[in-house]
Formats: sequence, structure tokens, C-alpha cells
Amino acid sequence: MPIQLYELVGRDDRRFSPYCWRTRMALEHKGLDYETVPVRFADKDLIAFSGQERIPVIRDGDTVVSDSWVIAEYLEDTYPQAPSIFGGATERALARFINVWADRSLNGTLIKLVIADILDHVDPEDRDYFIKNRSARFGKPPEQVQTRSDADLKAFGAAVSTIGAALEGQDFLSGDSPAYSDYIVFGAFAWARAISDFKLIEADNPVYAWRDRMLHLYGGMPGKSVGYDV
Amino acid sequence: MPIQLYELVGRDDRRFSPYCWRTRMALEHKGLDYETVPVRFADKDLIAFSGQERIPVIRDGDTVVSDSWVIAEYLEDTYPQAPSIFGGATERALARFINVWADRSLNGTLIKLVIADILDHVDPEDRDYFIKNRSARFGKPPEQVQTRSDADLKAFGAAVSTIGAALEGQDFLSGDSPAYSDYIVFGAFAWARAISDFKLIEADNPVYAWRDRMLHLYGGMPGKSVGYDV
Repeated sequence: MPIQLYELVGRDDRRFSPYCWRTRMALEHKGLDYETVPVRFADKDLIAFSGQERIPVIRDGDTVVSDSWVIAEYLEDTYPQAPSIFGGATERALARFINVWADRSLNGTLIKLVIADILDHVDPEDRDYFIKNRSARFGKPPEQVQTRSDADLKAFGAAVSTIGAALEGQDFLSGDSPAYSDYIVFGAFAWARAISDFKLIEADNPVYAWRDRMLHLYGGMPGKSVGYDV
Repeated sequence: MPIQLYELVGRDDRRFSPYCWRTRMALEHKGLDYETVPVRFADKDLIAFSGQERIPVIRDGDTVVSDSWVIAEYLEDTYPQAPSIFGGATERALARFINVWADRSLNGTLIKLVIADILDHVDPEDRDYFIKNRSARFGKPPEQVQTRSDADLKAFGAAVSTIGAALEGQDFLSGDSPAYSDYIVFGAFAWARAISDFKLIEADNPVYAWRDRMLHLYGGMPGKSVGYDV
């Protein structure tokens, strides 16, 4: 029986969770048989069995795992014969640093640039939930968060610039071929692409070429997913 | 003949370059025979043979290498039998990310907190050079940069918080034992410790415990170097 990945979904099958993308790419990397179960914000009862409310969640036979990092470690340790998403113990430790950095400095700055665009790509019920939930988190509604001020653009630009400098002389953050650290960072761009036509990176930026390489992995699955060509 | 490491030095043998610390720790990790050649800002003619003006520089027989990252790669590739500072190719690629991040987000925020303290720990000639050079870079003299404003403290605190979260469940950024990524980050704290008594991290912060572990490596060499107990 394939692994089931419970994945956040908007209208028109748009997959817009950076964390679910990390898991999906890890499943692809390891070549594991999986199927996705779309979950809207309003469908939280679908993942009640996991004992918590956040996606991604995977169900692998009788095993249920949530939290993208914990899932990555579970997949790596449970399927050691499948291609490694980390490499060795040191790479796993360093990927943890990149995981923390991406959550804070990349996703944390990107959300301010695309948060209101999410509203146009979810069902009405989810829209109401999202406005209420995120307004509480940010202290103002999404439309007022997404001003794309110079300061917000600069903060995201600094994160992109760090990625670009790290890519100097190598095709992927992990070196010659992609691994989990690339999936961590790619999750941000896959998420944005699904729900926003805002151009985050110019075509002459090295991060753009890297993103393009990522979109073409695994039979082009990421690039074929519903989203904007930006 | 031992490898010679040309290293920035202040008064009382204070070693206050984060980049030289990266190299020194790499040399220790690999167990290579080396000696340091102290270089003040005013002594740039000492490294003229390297064809550039920045430290660290190493001279290994007839080979001269500058730039801490290039030196790390040189040491790793030239001495493959000595303990690896990276691990494998993927770890080296990921260390590159941490190198970029540390240069920008860690050293780049720390400098604002300790830049004026450097003035009290260098020779008068170096003091004049430093004021002039850094005033040009920052657009104002060191005393006006080092205000330790809430914003500056917060920016550095965000970098420390990223390190702390990455250390969750592991003793070193590289996992169970230290490697080059730890040395990259440690360079910042070794630098600050040499010239400033400003308390950068509280004792209950996980980064403090990690720093302490780093200070005790290699016979306690880092902790025995001239600096403040903060």
C-alpha cells in the first residue's frame, strides 16, 4: 500500500504548503510509492487521526508521522535502502541548520509578499478561516500585510542572495545533485508559485536557474503542478 | 616545515579575525603542524607575497593560499589522509551555505555590537587605520556604529536563535562531533571574545553551551587564547 501524504490544497488543485513540498520531494527522491490526499483548511478532521492539526502528515501502513522534519528523518531511517535524502549523519545535522534558517529567514520573509494572494486561490470557507487565523497571527489582515514594502522586499532579497552566493560553483545547495536541503529551500518557491504571479526572482539570478532545475526534477512533476510561470 | 598561518593580531596577542579562527580550527582539526605569524593592520607588507591584502593567508612550502574558504578546501584536498573537516562532497556543499550565512547574518550583525571595542585592543597605528577604513565602510566612525540599539541587538539575536534551534538535539552543528561548519560559526564568537567584554549570549542559551564545548577543543587552545571570560 502506498504511503499517503496529506497535503494542503487550494482551489484547482494548487498545492501551497512549503512544508508539504519538502515531504513530497523527499518521497520522490527516495522513489517511494505514495499518493497524496488533498486537505483544505476546512478539512482538518481528515488529519484528526494524527493527533494534531498541521500538515504534512503521512500514513505509512500503521505508522502516522507529522512535521516535515520528523517525516524526513522517518523516511530516511525506515527506508535506508532507498536513495538517501541526507547523505550521512553530518549532512543530516547541517540540513537541520538549513531547515531552521528556511523556516525563519526564507519562509518568514516570503509570506509577507504573497499572503494576500493565497486568498484568491482557496475556497470561500478556507478564505474566511485564513483571514481570521492569519490576522490574529500578524495583528492585521493579509491585505495589509502584503504591501511589498521596500523593507519586506529587502528582507526576502537578503535570503535569496544568501542562496545565490551558496550556489556559486555548484548546481545544487547539496552539490552536484539535489538532496533534502534543496527540497527545504525549494518548498518556499513551489509554494509561492502555486498561488502568486508575483515575480520573486529575475531570470538572470542564479537562484532562478537553480529553481528551474528543481522544477524539472522527477519527470518534471514540480513544474507540472498547478501554478504560475514566473 | 610547518604550515605558516598569517593571522590578524591586536595588542597583547589578541587574535580577532573570525576568518583566521576558521583556518586555525581547521588546521587543528586536521592535526597539521602549523605556526602562526601575527599580522597587524599596519603590517600588510608581511603578506604582500600573497598578492592581496586580506588575512588569513597560509604558506605551505611553496604554496600560498588566501581566503578562509579557499584555504579550507586546499587543506582538505591536499591532506586527504588527515581527519576530514567537511566529511563528504555534500557536507562541503552545505558548509558553503553556512559560510555565506555566517559572513552575512552572523558576522555582519555582530560587528555592529563590538566594532568600537576593537579600538581599545589594537596598537595606536592600527587604531588610526581601523577608524579610517571602517568609517568609510559604515559611513560613520566605530563609536557611532556601536550603539547596541534594540534593532542591532535583535538582528544579532536572530542569528544566535537560528544557531540555537539548529543545535536542538545535537552537540555540534555538524552533529556528534565538530567539523568545519562549527568552525565557521565559532569564528564569530572567538573574534568577539578576543576584543570585547560585552556579553553576547546568556549562560542558559544552548549556544552558550556549544560555544563552551568549542572553547575546550584541541587541548583548550581556543579558550586559552587571550580574551574575555564572557
